[in-house]
Amino acid sequence: MKGEGLKIVLSGPSGSGKGTIVQELLKDGNYKLSISATTRKARTGEVDGVHYFFKTQAEFEDMIDHEQLLEYACFCNNYYGTPKAFIDETVSSGADILLEIEIQGALQVKRKYPEAIFIFIMPPTFDELKSRLKGRNTESDEVINQRLARAREELMLFKEYDYIIINDNLQDAVDKVIAISLTEKLKSSRYKAFIEDMLQN
Amino acid sequence: MKGEGLKIVLSGPSGSGKGTIVQELLKDGNYKLSISATTRKARTGEVDGVHYFFKTQAEFEDMIDHEQLLEYACFCNNYYGTPKAFIDETVSSGADILLEIEIQGALQVKRKYPEAIFIFIMPPTFDELKSRLKGRNTESDEVINQRLARAREELMLFKEYDYIIINDNLQDAVDKVIAISLTEKLKSSRYKAFIEDMLQN
Repeated sequence: MKGEGLKIVLSGPSGSGKGTIVQELLKDGNYKLSISATTRKARTGEVDGVHYFFKTQAEFEDMIDHEQLLEYACFCNNYYGTPKAFIDETVSSGADILLEIEIQGALQVKRKYPEAIFIFIMPPTFDELKSRLKGRNTESDEVINQRLARAREELMLFKEYDYIIINDNLQDAVDKVIAISLTEKLKSSRYKAFIEDMLQN
Repeated sequence: MKGEGLKIVLSGPSGSGKGTIVQELLKDGNYKLSISATTRKARTGEVDGVHYFFKTQAEFEDMIDHEQLLEYACFCNNYYGTPKAFIDETVSSGADILLEIEIQGALQVKRKYPEAIFIFIMPPTFDELKSRLKGRNTESDEVINQRLARAREELMLFKEYDYIIINDNLQDAVDKVIAISLTEKLKSSRYKAFIEDMLQN
């Protein structure tokens, strides 16, 4: 019983480690990644069309106008958004798609795809989050403080998510996403046709 | 984050293999088994207080009168029921309890424990179910036919269950129950206290 793939939305504060979890999940081949479009500058090592589609503000606003985005949000003065078509094609083919999306964006996705699975990745403690953000050393203190304030706001919205994963061990966190994916595919609502068919034959 | 253990109800037609799945799950030590009371005769190898509490009809009806049963049902002229106290103690201690219950019983449990997790174990095909029932060779043709008719009725009630596991491979089926248990513990509703605590400290 295969059926449609899952749309799995992963959110979490900057520094929660969600990006690393996504990279691990992609190694096992059962997941595809929804690539976001953004107007923020590429960090060292980030590749256009792999990590993000890097866009100018004018290009991004054109995508908004043409409704080519599932959701978009402005965060730290940059646009982030999710191109639609690739997601629909991926799940129709039976593959699961991972969407790594900031929380406001995730709430927009929830309205459009209520069947999607929403996972919130958490640091084990707020202090741990602080030190992870500082450890990255790619942002100014002002940006770090903005992100901490935002993380606090985001944590208060945890109820909007289906599942919480506390990321205190990378492999455990990855295994949890895999367990959630497997479990979601066992939901009885997905078995209607299969059982009706069995009863007829 | 430990919290209360899960109540996991496993149902499925006779011959679906649910009993074998339960025995495998008990090997890993994270699960406890709810032991049913029954008035049916012990099969060869079955031990009172391990596989069932074997009761006379009078003893069983006394347990009903004293409300010591979570649910009970009459099936093929025998009573089957679930003693309450052990379940509540087990989940309070943080352990997960497995309840292997016929479908009418499961529906009674659902009313009393709406938070319980309901898993329906299915044979891969109806023919496979038939041959499994015959293969066991412990029952008369009449009993086998009663069970097949009942299996058909039970399959039609699959929507009452949260999850469906098609048991075409024992280890896969066991892994699916384990994935469901892990996933259920990640539900955001279980994290309220944890997150409020994190935000305060």
